[in-house]
Amino acid sequence: MKNYFSSNFTLGVLGGGQLGRMLLSETQKFDIYTAILDNDKNAPCSEICNRFEVGNLLDYEAVYNFGKTVDLLTIEIENVNIDALEQLEKEGLPIFPKPQNLRIIQSKARQKHFYIDHQIPTAPFSHFAYLEELKHAIENSALQFPFVWKAARFGYDGNGVKIVRNFSDLENLPNVECITEKLIPFKNELAVIVARNLNGEMKTYPVVEMEFHPEANQVEYVICPARIDEKVAQKAQEIALKVVHSLDFVGLLAVEMFQTIDDEILVNEVAPRPHNSGHYSIEASYTNQFEQHLRSILNLPLGNTESKVAGIMVNLVGEEGFSGNVFYENIEEMLRIDGVTPHIYGKKETRPFRKMGHVTIVNKDIDKAREIAQKVKETIRVISK
Amino acid sequence: MKNYFSSNFTLGVLGGGQLGRMLLSETQKFDIYTAILDNDKNAPCSEICNRFEVGNLLDYEAVYNFGKTVDLLTIEIENVNIDALEQLEKEGLPIFPKPQNLRIIQSKARQKHFYIDHQIPTAPFSHFAYLEELKHAIENSALQFPFVWKAARFGYDGNGVKIVRNFSDLENLPNVECITEKLIPFKNELAVIVARNLNGEMKTYPVVEMEFHPEANQVEYVICPARIDEKVAQKAQEIALKVVHSLDFVGLLAVEMFQTIDDEILVNEVAPRPHNSGHYSIEASYTNQFEQHLRSILNLPLGNTESKVAGIMVNLVGEEGFSGNVFYENIEEMLRIDGVTPHIYGKKETRPFRKMGHVTIVNKDIDKAREIAQKVKETIRVISK
Repeated sequence: MKNYFSSNFTLGVLGGGQLGRMLLSETQKFDIYTAILDNDKNAPCSEICNRFEVGNLLDYEAVYNFGKTVDLLTIEIENVNIDALEQLEKEGLPIFPKPQNLRIIQSKARQKHFYIDHQIPTAPFSHFAYLEELKHAIENSALQFPFVWKAARFGYDGNGVKIVRNFSDLENLPNVECITEKLIPFKNELAVIVARNLNGEMKTYPVVEMEFHPEANQVEYVICPARIDEKVAQKAQEIALKVVHSLDFVGLLAVEMFQTIDDEILVNEVAPRPHNSGHYSIEASYTNQFEQHLRSILNLPLGNTESKVAGIMVNLVGEEGFSGNVFYENIEEMLRIDGVTPHIYGKKETRPFRKMGHVTIVNKDIDKAREIAQKVKETIRVISK
Repeated sequence: MKNYFSSNFTLGVLGGGQLGRMLLSETQKFDIYTAILDNDKNAPCSEICNRFEVGNLLDYEAVYNFGKTVDLLTIEIENVNIDALEQLEKEGLPIFPKPQNLRIIQSKARQKHFYIDHQIPTAPFSHFAYLEELKHAIENSALQFPFVWKAARFGYDGNGVKIVRNFSDLENLPNVECITEKLIPFKNELAVIVARNLNGEMKTYPVVEMEFHPEANQVEYVICPARIDEKVAQKAQEIALKVVHSLDFVGLLAVEMFQTIDDEILVNEVAPRPHNSGHYSIEASYTNQFEQHLRSILNLPLGNTESKVAGIMVNLVGEEGFSGNVFYENIEEMLRIDGVTPHIYGKKETRPFRKMGHVTIVNKDIDKAREIAQKVKETIRVISK
């Protein structure tokens, strides 16, 4: 086993956003020299990693050249140039998660085909090369309203997803490759994070419950553990493990799922990296997801995924109607409450629904935590000044 | 209350060692732009703070000029130029801990006089301007063997402290200002960390127990909570609070104490900053000492000092007989054990007894944690390769 703690080793990370920023706390803890590539010279990681480079993550040359300067490559965002990764891998660079996994996960259409091919339960879907084909399908009665439209690529934080109930809902959609899914009524949105290292060691975090903002389609609260039946939780974890096995995945995989009215579990989508649904782990878990990501990609023994206390995460997103220099209203007030920890991502400008930070609430009593979370949500406002 | 979370505010820190490095995790979490001054261009913080400057911390000009570029100044090491701090304070710069407190704490002699003046229990002592005076006192029977010799200034990590049993023990001591203390038999060495902000809000961490290496006079294990009688713990906390009140202290103060054979509490010395005895808090406490330090110096509400789980810290110090490029032997093996987290400080070179990192062990069961801590201590070796 390589001794990462005292070697001249450079970890390369594609993407320098908030996930990279939280990862850096862990690379610093383990003293792992970390180089980061990001499109934006003011990215949240720019000033606090060992080496920062600016370059387009979707550009072959930029990714390839960066990859040649590091000893192991990982990602904090999946929208990166996969051709470059495959070439680097061919030339011997260890890359986790594996490029072939990223190629599948980058496309929601490929993800859906993969689930079907591997008998992983997921909502029925159709796949269209362009919006025009989709419209054609409706006209030919091959597709019925209502349905969920999803852009096959480059969606994030609720962008690229829309519930379509009639023709006018289709009007402003981009003419891109997309999938449509049957609108399935569900009780809960759940997520399970699984870590797996190259040795095949595997650990599953507890099932979390996600409460979404009804309009923005963004997570408002992540609650750990999910307040669901133990049998449902077990089923969710089993399905998450099945996804990891089917992908032969190495790294951290967040599996988002629906719990249907009939307590079926359907996989919605996966993220091959630390995930919003795991931020609670920084304060609540024995091993937080960022440390676990490092352990998994470096083929170190995986850490304990159990929780010390109940944890709830509240996203801090930009208020509607505010754009510009960010101001976090009433945040200090919330620090008066025991177990409240804000994480500010270091983005200078707010925009409606932009993820600017999060707050974790931990408590031995999950109901008390949920109460405080509500208060935090209602009190802190991310505005501009 | 100033909104530090979204302002153009620069926190200045004097010292960029391991304490600064762990503090940076917290300034990053709160997105507080942090500038650091250190003597060493390769200091543990050099690559990971927003702005790093090299300069002699004991030099008036270096400290003064650095102070003029920040909005609030704090320290992670107390051996800094106090004249410069007093001038900066006069010119309006907020500095916490306060320069007048640092002036007292910098000198073990002034500390002792302060305790006596404020009826704070401490071991009887004598104060000598030079070693020669001390020798004179022995010759005149004004001082008896055995005693503890302490350099008045610039001691750290057990340097500058020696048990003197006879004339030959005096031979290699430097001819500097010093104090001697009566050698008092004690049951335990304890420590209490107290946080206080400018509003006067105050919070006390649980009493911890320190087990020392018999030769190096360095802490080997810090155990939280201390396995002592509740009444003794209460007395230790009360005395720590008395020190904080007497100093009118703002910031984080670690108070090291002896529990005597008769269960008296005697103050040994204090540190005006995050302290080795509080490292366990990163994994075990609701609010770790570095976040608490920030909260106290920024006059934010203080966080919950209770523990989620029991925590034990093991220092990783350089093995005797090894100097040069550091290698952490068997560290990965220890990651197999639940609740074990290494913190590596990023120092490239090891030396005998140099603090290179620490490992925290958390567990719901303190005896189990102690068992694991022993194993960690006996397994990991900090050597050179």
